[in-house]
Amino acid sequence: MISSRKNISTIPAKGWAAYDPVGSFSLFEFERRSLNDSDVLIRIYFCGICHTDIHEAQNDWNVAKYPMVPGHEITGIVEQVGSDVKRFQIGDPVGVGCLVDSCRTCLPCQTNLEQHCTAGATYTYNGIEMDRKIPTYGGYSNLIVVTEHFVCLIPKNLPLDGAAPLLCAGTTTYSALRRYNVIKDTHIGIIGLGGLGHIALKLAVAMGAHVTVIALSESQRNDAIRLGAKGFIVSNDQETLKKAEGTLNFIIDTVPVPHNVSALLQLLAFEGVFCMIGISSKPIEIAPLDLVMKRLTIWGSLISGMRETQEMLNFCGQNEITCDIELIEATPNMIKTAFERILKGDVKYRFVLDMKNAFK
Amino acid sequence: MISSRKNISTIPAKGWAAYDPVGSFSLFEFERRSLNDSDVLIRIYFCGICHTDIHEAQNDWNVAKYPMVPGHEITGIVEQVGSDVKRFQIGDPVGVGCLVDSCRTCLPCQTNLEQHCTAGATYTYNGIEMDRKIPTYGGYSNLIVVTEHFVCLIPKNLPLDGAAPLLCAGTTTYSALRRYNVIKDTHIGIIGLGGLGHIALKLAVAMGAHVTVIALSESQRNDAIRLGAKGFIVSNDQETLKKAEGTLNFIIDTVPVPHNVSALLQLLAFEGVFCMIGISSKPIEIAPLDLVMKRLTIWGSLISGMRETQEMLNFCGQNEITCDIELIEATPNMIKTAFERILKGDVKYRFVLDMKNAFK
Repeated sequence: MISSRKNISTIPAKGWAAYDPVGSFSLFEFERRSLNDSDVLIRIYFCGICHTDIHEAQNDWNVAKYPMVPGHEITGIVEQVGSDVKRFQIGDPVGVGCLVDSCRTCLPCQTNLEQHCTAGATYTYNGIEMDRKIPTYGGYSNLIVVTEHFVCLIPKNLPLDGAAPLLCAGTTTYSALRRYNVIKDTHIGIIGLGGLGHIALKLAVAMGAHVTVIALSESQRNDAIRLGAKGFIVSNDQETLKKAEGTLNFIIDTVPVPHNVSALLQLLAFEGVFCMIGISSKPIEIAPLDLVMKRLTIWGSLISGMRETQEMLNFCGQNEITCDIELIEATPNMIKTAFERILKGDVKYRFVLDMKNAFK
Repeated sequence: MISSRKNISTIPAKGWAAYDPVGSFSLFEFERRSLNDSDVLIRIYFCGICHTDIHEAQNDWNVAKYPMVPGHEITGIVEQVGSDVKRFQIGDPVGVGCLVDSCRTCLPCQTNLEQHCTAGATYTYNGIEMDRKIPTYGGYSNLIVVTEHFVCLIPKNLPLDGAAPLLCAGTTTYSALRRYNVIKDTHIGIIGLGGLGHIALKLAVAMGAHVTVIALSESQRNDAIRLGAKGFIVSNDQETLKKAEGTLNFIIDTVPVPHNVSALLQLLAFEGVFCMIGISSKPIEIAPLDLVMKRLTIWGSLISGMRETQEMLNFCGQNEITCDIELIEATPNMIKTAFERILKGDVKYRFVLDMKNAFK
């Protein structure tokens, strides 16, 4: 007699885990669940290092559970599929982002905004499955099992390493641009030219927008122009900021540290929209008069839902867009160095771990 | 030979004017222009006292020009019309709000948002006409000449005294409610139960909304319920605020002094909208995380355009809505007393000057 129970056996996996807020990464041997009918087993090839990984690993938000295997910018190849899986076949190039499950029944889930699942979506790492018990481990590992709905197909013309950060940085910015309905010649400002900013710039340019980058240093001008920006402003250059007042329809603010948002609001034209995707830990100050006199809008935006993530990947395939990355070996030392360099802003523009060759 | 030049003669008028930031009001004899073809001459019957009148008269915003005749919540009767005037006849009950002219050609003007006229709309008092020379004098006076486009018809079933504050307080809140598309059972929060708040409440209830008032004092509860609120929260009652977290779709914040907006944002449900119409002179603090995690939106909203002002008046006619007022004699002493009581929050809910019987 063959048991019909699922998840009796498990799949052995290896990852690089943080064991405490100050510790280095070291080997963590753990188990992925064996495949349910709707599950996809993915051999992880690449995983981007998001700034969030540092916050989580170092317990900046006081929600860390150790051992923690970070990583939510995952690309790889399908190695096995459950019997009900329809969209994927063995050998398909696929990606996994910040989410691996949600309730699928609440209003946000039903309207393709799974990231806002009322029950609390399951984050790819440092989260818990929808049973509210089993911890999740992320992409600094060799294998991952994810239910089909939360897996995306990577267009075949995109390299899997440069595509990895699209799953978080790419889709976060794409979602904001689409929500505004950016079209040809929309005048956009992008605050910050880092991991989020550089891909926001590429996406906005591909949509036909006229983009101005506002960044910390003159040294970033050449890159901004090379990536398609029409304008560039150093954020402390009061004179140029003054000249640009009222010229932008839409601003995406990617900066995750406290900064002068009031000054940036001045750049917006009548009925302009300011979208926050960088989450500063300290409150920002806004003068109500600024909002009222120009009928401005401020939005918050959090990653994207699954339908939009796939739409973003298709858009990137059509426009041959990937992230500018530094591909590094997936070793504890390299992760440590990468974290240190990210904190100094010293990366163009995303580190991607070569997970394919880790654990060998 | 008869000259074809316009504005050769003028119409003598009387008003109560402030002559300096600290001074009392005293008689000001001045001239209204004689009628151009599109002009309407209005005999002023009533004029509401808006908090803005105090800011302007006392030069709180450093833009005062004296002598200043305040007043932008004007109702009265048409006494004369220019040859091209189509919408009004002598004897019609009419109203004038915050604006008396704009360029009529810019994008905001063309889209019925004259309050955002790119050239700078002409405010009803302490402003300048579109010739950028002639000063404007407001409704604390006996007569006013306004071009037809900026005059509204008051529905015949509304009393002209209670209707006067609709021209500013009413239309400011109506515009915000309509922008959100408030419908039956929309859950709304109204912050502050003053001149703006009490009419926002009446309008929202007439739209079928489920309204919660958040106000400073328990003593305002009975009035809020009487005016149709289903919920009432004292703004420092942390426990009740906590219970109400996530329950509101839309909040109108009418409070013009610094207050804790971050705490109020917690009341919003997923995709909720917070609309500022009260203009606090100090910046407000907002935590980006609050915006991002619930996909919230913050708006600023400034009075309304002329089409919407007329729409609001028609809505008030259909629903028999006017403001709760204290009608007072239009004398310098009474204006002084009214200003003092407004600054103490001691008015339910708007002072209206009886201009019909002033200057006799």
